[in-house]
Amino acid sequence: MNTNTVKAFGTEAADADLEPMQIDRREITTKDVEIEILYCGVCHSDLHTARNDWGGSKYPSVPGHEIVGKVTRVGSDVTKFKTGDLAAVGCMVDSCQTCDNCKQDLEQFCLNGFTGTYNGKDKHSGKHTFGGYSEKIVVDEHFVLKVPENLDLAAVAPVLCAGITTWSPLRHWNVKEGSKVAVIGLGGLGHMALKLAHALGAEVTLFSRSAGKTEEAKSLGADSVIISTDADQMKTVQGKFDLIIDTVPYVHDLNPYIQTLHASGTLVLVGFLGNLEPMLNTAPLVLGRKSIAGSLIGGIAETQELLDFCGKHNIVSEIEIIKMQDINNAYERMLKSDVRYRFVIDMASLKN
Amino acid sequence: MNTNTVKAFGTEAADADLEPMQIDRREITTKDVEIEILYCGVCHSDLHTARNDWGGSKYPSVPGHEIVGKVTRVGSDVTKFKTGDLAAVGCMVDSCQTCDNCKQDLEQFCLNGFTGTYNGKDKHSGKHTFGGYSEKIVVDEHFVLKVPENLDLAAVAPVLCAGITTWSPLRHWNVKEGSKVAVIGLGGLGHMALKLAHALGAEVTLFSRSAGKTEEAKSLGADSVIISTDADQMKTVQGKFDLIIDTVPYVHDLNPYIQTLHASGTLVLVGFLGNLEPMLNTAPLVLGRKSIAGSLIGGIAETQELLDFCGKHNIVSEIEIIKMQDINNAYERMLKSDVRYRFVIDMASLKN
Repeated sequence: MNTNTVKAFGTEAADADLEPMQIDRREITTKDVEIEILYCGVCHSDLHTARNDWGGSKYPSVPGHEIVGKVTRVGSDVTKFKTGDLAAVGCMVDSCQTCDNCKQDLEQFCLNGFTGTYNGKDKHSGKHTFGGYSEKIVVDEHFVLKVPENLDLAAVAPVLCAGITTWSPLRHWNVKEGSKVAVIGLGGLGHMALKLAHALGAEVTLFSRSAGKTEEAKSLGADSVIISTDADQMKTVQGKFDLIIDTVPYVHDLNPYIQTLHASGTLVLVGFLGNLEPMLNTAPLVLGRKSIAGSLIGGIAETQELLDFCGKHNIVSEIEIIKMQDINNAYERMLKSDVRYRFVIDMASLKN
Repeated sequence: MNTNTVKAFGTEAADADLEPMQIDRREITTKDVEIEILYCGVCHSDLHTARNDWGGSKYPSVPGHEIVGKVTRVGSDVTKFKTGDLAAVGCMVDSCQTCDNCKQDLEQFCLNGFTGTYNGKDKHSGKHTFGGYSEKIVVDEHFVLKVPENLDLAAVAPVLCAGITTWSPLRHWNVKEGSKVAVIGLGGLGHMALKLAHALGAEVTLFSRSAGKTEEAKSLGADSVIISTDADQMKTVQGKFDLIIDTVPYVHDLNPYIQTLHASGTLVLVGFLGNLEPMLNTAPLVLGRKSIAGSLIGGIAETQELLDFCGKHNIVSEIEIIKMQDINNAYERMLKSDVRYRFVIDMASLKN
């Protein structure tokens, strides 16, 4: 396989800082798009993978799956893109495209396993994939998204993960004008959920553990804020919500939130993977036909739908732009939730 | 309030046997239907209420909410029924009929609380309601169902609770031709779930803890039986089901069943109210957009839909007919799961 060497930023070990390195990108195939990466968002998954928090990380590790840039070359069979087009890549760069789920535009549930943008198994090289903390990336055009021209390009990057992760459940559970939606947690995912639910016409409530976020949340699209530790405030929203998007990434008690679901309502976990503790009581589920569900990013067509929606409604992420060289410090700040609401790397800094 | 005294069978205390007694039924209002009860199914809830297993039982307690019979009188405003018609009453005899849920034919989720057929709060008398272990019952026509003429009337009775409890989730989660449905547990609810899912055109699997039920399950509508304690058999159905109807009434580990759901699939609890133990792992929910839900009986319109469907498809419950005087022995047998699949009381025996 012919390859091209490009600059990147990654780490050689779980306990090492990220640093400049060289990686190989495959020469474009007839179906590939080569993208010069202009901006790359910084997701918590980047940090967890670099540091092997989940196990299974492969090194060298080059994170980054909120990628926007410009097309530099296209393969001979590529029809969707031409040189100079804006383009984006999210959490997936490949899937079988033949299984039942792929055929239904649910590549994230590919029965043969999708290829993650980083730390995935690259079908071309047989090695593991490298993400967006790099100069260029080469991706099958099916997994490359079109980017509306009217948006702040840097602020589009987080749409590719934080955005689609909240958009997909909003769409799957049919949020529309007048729906009552709550969002738990105001981070990268939560702030996008507020914006998107609001733009869909929902009445939006933020559940927060800390006071003082009301003004900020309202500026992002919330109609109201409920302090989840305040029993009196929680009582005011009993049986209210059609859908709750729960973005909290650590274990937490779902029972109080279930009480705030309307009959037939659903609480969707998008942040927490692990054992539910304390125990979930099933009585409110049965007595109110309520559901607890999970949701994982979104399919490619759905991601395109989201980008188009963002273009139409002028929605982007709130971001703080950093240089590639600041990534280690940015990770430390993310661990302290010291970011409003997403770091985005200006990849021009990688050339320095 | 004018009343009429009728024969019934009930208990004066949680630790007493059921015995003959007299109860009052209100004189029909303009909207009421008076029904001579011909058959009444015996639900586990009857036993739990009679014995105060859930707390809150009021005495004297007259259970029974799987009621079929013949209309004996109708109020002047009643339009749906006339004297001599077959009629049925299920788990509800009243609701506010004005709240958002009632207006959507979801009386089981009435925001002001539905009135249970027994042990509910009767709006007319101010006392508690008495169920179907009695000669007659008087019910607002909105809560009275029409019964197809072509069915075995005794065997229709369990459709009013065991039937609708499984029908409602099959319909809400859109089971249709080709859907892959599993049923956990082969009791009163489970055997109806097999019949109904099969009649809807689904491919139906029974999960059972014990071998030897295969032939029986297949005769009821199952295409296959999986022994849930056999890891090899469980592996053969990983990722298979669109919907699992879980009829098990005691605490049990849901995690192995979640693995058998397809992406976007749902496991619906209809039998167990309590804390989920062992802990539920959320990772399969998130990674496969799977849901855990509950479901409670069904609305009145949905119950009529089911009865009509049963008439069309010639579906009734498998039953063992007993005399009213045998009820205490029947409860003991139910506790040992010694019933295939539902006891139904021939109410003519009450007249003896």
